[in-house]
Amino acid sequence: MSEYIEHSPSGTSVGRVEKRFFTVAEADSPLTVESGRALGPVVLAYETCGQLNERADNAVLVLHALTGDSHAAGYYEPGDAKPGWWDIMIGPGKPIDTDRYYVICSNVIGGCMGSTGPSSLDPATGQPYGLTFPVITIGDMVRAQKRLVEHLGVTKLLSVVGGSMGGMQALEWSVRYPDMVRTAVPLATTTKHSALAIAFNEVARQAIMADPNWNGGNYYDGVPPAHGLAVGRMIGHITYLSDEAMRQKFDRRLQDRCENSFVLEEPDFQVESYLRYQGQKFVDRFDANSFLYITKAADYFNLEASHGCGSAVAAFAKAKCRYLVASFSSDWLYPTYQSRAMVQAMKKNGLDVSFVELEAKWGHDAFLLPNARLSGMIARFLDRALVDAAKEDARAL
Amino acid sequence: MSEYIEHSPSGTSVGRVEKRFFTVAEADSPLTVESGRALGPVVLAYETCGQLNERADNAVLVLHALTGDSHAAGYYEPGDAKPGWWDIMIGPGKPIDTDRYYVICSNVIGGCMGSTGPSSLDPATGQPYGLTFPVITIGDMVRAQKRLVEHLGVTKLLSVVGGSMGGMQALEWSVRYPDMVRTAVPLATTTKHSALAIAFNEVARQAIMADPNWNGGNYYDGVPPAHGLAVGRMIGHITYLSDEAMRQKFDRRLQDRCENSFVLEEPDFQVESYLRYQGQKFVDRFDANSFLYITKAADYFNLEASHGCGSAVAAFAKAKCRYLVASFSSDWLYPTYQSRAMVQAMKKNGLDVSFVELEAKWGHDAFLLPNARLSGMIARFLDRALVDAAKEDARAL
Repeated sequence: MSEYIEHSPSGTSVGRVEKRFFTVAEADSPLTVESGRALGPVVLAYETCGQLNERADNAVLVLHALTGDSHAAGYYEPGDAKPGWWDIMIGPGKPIDTDRYYVICSNVIGGCMGSTGPSSLDPATGQPYGLTFPVITIGDMVRAQKRLVEHLGVTKLLSVVGGSMGGMQALEWSVRYPDMVRTAVPLATTTKHSALAIAFNEVARQAIMADPNWNGGNYYDGVPPAHGLAVGRMIGHITYLSDEAMRQKFDRRLQDRCENSFVLEEPDFQVESYLRYQGQKFVDRFDANSFLYITKAADYFNLEASHGCGSAVAAFAKAKCRYLVASFSSDWLYPTYQSRAMVQAMKKNGLDVSFVELEAKWGHDAFLLPNARLSGMIARFLDRALVDAAKEDARAL
Repeated sequence: MSEYIEHSPSGTSVGRVEKRFFTVAEADSPLTVESGRALGPVVLAYETCGQLNERADNAVLVLHALTGDSHAAGYYEPGDAKPGWWDIMIGPGKPIDTDRYYVICSNVIGGCMGSTGPSSLDPATGQPYGLTFPVITIGDMVRAQKRLVEHLGVTKLLSVVGGSMGGMQALEWSVRYPDMVRTAVPLATTTKHSALAIAFNEVARQAIMADPNWNGGNYYDGVPPAHGLAVGRMIGHITYLSDEAMRQKFDRRLQDRCENSFVLEEPDFQVESYLRYQGQKFVDRFDANSFLYITKAADYFNLEASHGCGSAVAAFAKAKCRYLVASFSSDWLYPTYQSRAMVQAMKKNGLDVSFVELEAKWGHDAFLLPNARLSGMIARFLDRALVDAAKEDARAL
């Protein structure tokens, strides 16, 4: 690892990491997902950094958002263009300090980055599942993760940490497996997907399904629905920013020109070029069916319904952990009022909750961007969690 | 007309109206549009209600939004399912009182409701223009309207009134033809399209252009790009609502079912069904190329650049009219701060401006919905305008 640390500009990269695979359910002992269907085998792609300590009380499970993956930090190869998606947060001396914590991150089921998803081969047919893959939920993702975590020798997680859909998983963990979670850090997230958030996802899905190449999900031996997926991603990118972020980042600036093109198909404005670029870039790395399944899982997410008969207070009655909740002022996908509501429900259960709305211009995506205040809060929160864990462990002996 | 008034539930319908056509530019004396290209013939579809008075000082030009048309009020036929798009505002005894005002509304050029647009036949080829139609601007729309207004015997409009893209036209009118405009009522609009607004339009355009049936704009003798247009419209409908509007209207309610379908293609939620329905409904009435051209015109709209070298204050230096500006608290497509900025620029020029931010849950679309406060303001504003016009006319004699 050391040879990569010296190449890192900040000197705090975790260095080289390796994607591994663990079969959490076999074909002959499948996972029964929430819809009632059986799925097997179920493989999770995962990565770890840092070392599990002797007491096995320093494991932090990092949970990725919609289009993320297991590659949260570090590099696969020295020449990699980019480090993992949360490299600013995870590494030696960083808030999720890999000198102190054992960090686990896995690709969600339904994904296309190594975990079992619609592009995986169905052992029954030898063909990719496509739309025969069962519709899955955030709860199903978490149930698969539990098996991985246990396999890694962890019976109680120091923390479950994630933003956006990763935050949904963190919340789900805290309520579904309260005895396995000491603390949870749900960022820029919600206890239930709003109509607005569902609407955006639905339009993105419709864009994919409108692409004739989608072909009912059967495109793995042909041309993928790249146009539809690109449009879907463009919609997503609008929701990740904010009015102010777009104004600051692009305003009405033209792209490589001095005046309007007066050509219909031309991207005159920088924001148009940016969106087209993001759309194009995405189709090279993501599977359209995975996008459909994962957005559906996010839309179905409703912690209040699935754990509290419709009541957030009842849902959090199951939780035992300490929470650090953060929202971002310009996030209009999961606005602050949704975080406030979850914090209220936590507090009504007497849970120990820290909450902050962070001033941020960059909209929903802010949780992925450098933010000294957020970094400091997470660092201190985990530090206290580890101290508390050590005390508890000492008491238990 | 009278026979329909008695059928109107409120007794204040303008009754039957007729779509008329006026050729504002001939093939041999075309309109040179802002891009420099020549367009001719140019026909505007228009409707009028009320009577022009003797002094010809009671004409109100109503300007429609993106997908509107000349049919602002009344009915074409007794059996019509719906009246014109602003029937709540226009009619005898209504805020834009057709007993007092002569109301004109025309379909914009580039449109597909009777005015010359990309689906019109190019006289040079005998075929629909498709993408050979010139890219047009809000300024071009207004220049065509001026010819219609003059044709109707109006040299000075009592008011130019419109919301959203209609508001852009109202602003454009007030600055481009200051001597022809006594008052202007720009609602839920902006002096320049923001990056966010451009972004939404661009994604909608990409959705249409991604549809293979779009075929570079040549689909008039084949199958239109209905899937792409439907997705584009769905995106629009999200921007016309608001987070709160969607929560109140749909929340997470399921459509015709008690539980999640766990079927990927199914619209589980009401908001999904609503959007799909809106998308489907739209493709029956609107031309995809018109959608492309009109959104491009809106994106190009920048009153500050085109009339003030980049300064809103300089742009409004040309204006002479009195303004009534209204924004809506939940409108995130053209948020209140954009209206405030235009009001400031008007005031710096010593212009007489009334401004109100109306509390409204329903997002951008609020200007189309019943709102007693807005109705009252418009009624009083026009009333005073007519009184002032009469005084001025008397002085001029």
